[in-house]
Amino acid sequence: MLVIGIDPGTATTGYGFVQEERDGTLTAVAYGVVTTPAGQEMPKRLVRLHEELAQLIILHRPESGAVEKLFFQKNVKTAITVAQGRGVALLALAQAGLPIGEYTPLEVKQSVVGYGNADKGQVQQMVRVLLGLETIPKPDDAADALAIAICHLHMVKSKTWYEDGQ
Amino acid sequence: MLVIGIDPGTATTGYGFVQEERDGTLTAVAYGVVTTPAGQEMPKRLVRLHEELAQLIILHRPESGAVEKLFFQKNVKTAITVAQGRGVALLALAQAGLPIGEYTPLEVKQSVVGYGNADKGQVQQMVRVLLGLETIPKPDDAADALAIAICHLHMVKSKTWYEDGQ
Repeated sequence: MLVIGIDPGTATTGYGFVQEERDGTLTAVAYGVVTTPAGQEMPKRLVRLHEELAQLIILHRPESGAVEKLFFQKNVKTAITVAQGRGVALLALAQAGLPIGEYTPLEVKQSVVGYGNADKGQVQQMVRVLLGLETIPKPDDAADALAIAICHLHMVKSKTWYEDGQ
Repeated sequence: MLVIGIDPGTATTGYGFVQEERDGTLTAVAYGVVTTPAGQEMPKRLVRLHEELAQLIILHRPESGAVEKLFFQKNVKTAITVAQGRGVALLALAQAGLPIGEYTPLEVKQSVVGYGNADKGQVQQMVRVLLGLETIPKPDDAADALAIAICHLHMVKSKTWYEDGQ
């Protein structure tokens, strides 16, 4: 099963495609970031983000997607801007007909590292180990997106529809 | 010049198309709301919103669009949800190649009524008068969207590119 994880952001949106084999082996099929020019006006940046995500989905054909939930943020202005990008990411996944999981940062940490208080470095190390990579995936937003994809695979696994082979 | 105004929301997004003639006369060409089922999951609701807005733009062919800015909200969770819809609305406008104006509620009130402390009822009455309608447009979100479109026409008028006849 191939899933795409997305870590939504304003200037930089991380993505990571993770394949899980029948024996449980995880592989990072592709990962990276979609960046939009800081000087460009927001609507055009949203178009760029939508196009890039749609093309990545067509290219890799994931069966499912996962996006990090936005949690309470002190800076409401930042929260609103990131949420606009998140809306476009959800749209791209849903337009491709993918079932979508949404997880809080706490759920991602618990799923990937085993406890919710894990720091960023611990999450990245576990992502490296679980995916059998020699070094930590860069940049950080891509590593975060891979963590979200891994969390999604863990969550999906515990559901019947995956056991049924769908 | 025909413009579309959009009042973004979660369950209900208001829209209003306003035509300004050379002599300054304003007409409400079309207005209404896009609603999405409350029980449906958010990604599907965003797809519905995007489709409806894209179809309205194809149907009426506005030259420009305007969307209300999200202002500081006490409820961050609500702000995030509305912002996701707002991102999709900005995307639909930008995908159609429309120049986009963004205005705060204060700017809309100042532009439509003449002062920023105007209440909802006063704004709706002025929308009715300015568009030459017999009754206040319903529902409220549609009236708000028409107010945003009128504000945009006022703002655009004061810019050179409109005077140049573009």
